[in-house]
Amino acid sequence: MTNPTAAMLVIGDEILSGRTRDANMHYLAGEAIKHGIRMAEVRIVPDRQDRIVAALNALRTDYDIVFTSGGIGPTHDDITADAVAAAFGVGIGVREDARALLAEYCARMGRDLNEARLRMARIPDGATLIANPISAAPGFVIGNVHVMAGVPSVFQAMVAGVLPTLAGGDPLMSQTLCVERPEGDIAGELRGLAARFDDLSIGSYPFSRDGVYGTNIVIRGSDGARIDAAMAELCALFPEAMA
Amino acid sequence: MTNPTAAMLVIGDEILSGRTRDANMHYLAGEAIKHGIRMAEVRIVPDRQDRIVAALNALRTDYDIVFTSGGIGPTHDDITADAVAAAFGVGIGVREDARALLAEYCARMGRDLNEARLRMARIPDGATLIANPISAAPGFVIGNVHVMAGVPSVFQAMVAGVLPTLAGGDPLMSQTLCVERPEGDIAGELRGLAARFDDLSIGSYPFSRDGVYGTNIVIRGSDGARIDAAMAELCALFPEAMA
Repeated sequence: MTNPTAAMLVIGDEILSGRTRDANMHYLAGEAIKHGIRMAEVRIVPDRQDRIVAALNALRTDYDIVFTSGGIGPTHDDITADAVAAAFGVGIGVREDARALLAEYCARMGRDLNEARLRMARIPDGATLIANPISAAPGFVIGNVHVMAGVPSVFQAMVAGVLPTLAGGDPLMSQTLCVERPEGDIAGELRGLAARFDDLSIGSYPFSRDGVYGTNIVIRGSDGARIDAAMAELCALFPEAMA
Repeated sequence: MTNPTAAMLVIGDEILSGRTRDANMHYLAGEAIKHGIRMAEVRIVPDRQDRIVAALNALRTDYDIVFTSGGIGPTHDDITADAVAAAFGVGIGVREDARALLAEYCARMGRDLNEARLRMARIPDGATLIANPISAAPGFVIGNVHVMAGVPSVFQAMVAGVLPTLAGGDPLMSQTLCVERPEGDIAGELRGLAARFDDLSIGSYPFSRDGVYGTNIVIRGSDGARIDAAMAELCALFPEAMA
């Protein structure tokens, strides 16, 4: 496999309490895969430095690329930048280029660049800024870790800026066949197919709709010819199905 | 704190590929907190035994209760039961009570209890079944790990059966104040409040709606009188806000 592996760390009590339904993980997974980057693991942790540091140090060791979301705002519960600095064992302080971005934005919006907002210019030593075209406060990259905002509109704008800077891999493709038979009826045939195409990922997702039990079969991989071959066998097994 | 801590392990390539947006984590977090159980960490891993085993063994050691979703169907990519048995170092095989549940359901639905469906009766040694009132194939409990389906309707039915069997804790309550000021304007006051009420969790969530920048402030804890006291101070700080 030539596809880099990625992990995501979602930071925020509001996700774990059930108050907010995370939207960033699903968005990033879909964008990354178009860029040839496979999401291999996700963790969600609360706004606690020890928990952020432990998860980040595990993920940045185990995977090629790490993305984080959440915890880079101006309030007391925004502790991600400090936690990332601690995880890397580097210092952190207000940086002039980040302060200038915030000052320009505050002047334009008629806001005060107060002590709380200046916290958003605190960047771990050695990091590179990630542009925030929505609300100025930057994200940053340190090592293989890409630190981004939790607000979905800002997160998405940062992802759009970051992904083109990353070396992707072979594009990951998928084809889907929808069979109107319950999963348990077709599992035997699928197992045989998966064994013959063990270089591909063949997933099986049951559904019921208007009283009909069916199965979506998804074939994923980076070799288009192999996917086509598996799809041809699959269609021959279930000639009544809809691609 | 007398509240048990919980973690969730979401198992499935379809979540990590961006094909499916997970709904179970958000649902469980909201239900668990009503029962006094705090969700403390979530991990999402692919359909690979080594990755499931590693995540499960970490989570079941670190937290009081673990919930899993996904990977207990009839197809080749449903490997959760085997992975859980491996994590606990116990055997696994078709169990008579689980087989009877499936046989009754298949007879009622006019389906064949074939080899693939019988896989759903494979239960790790020593586990207790979790009822599935939707489609019969049971989940199970082993140690502190509760293994449930990935299909949301089935997952929710299993959660409804499982939560009353768990010792909860003090009910976790929250109150929210909506202030129509940007987060950066009010962060200083919030920091002071959070320091005075460090036994509570005070979260700050910015929004923009119709050109208005505002902040939802959420106070969480298990001591209602303390939450009331913090809320009174908060309302005094921002008399124009809406509770």
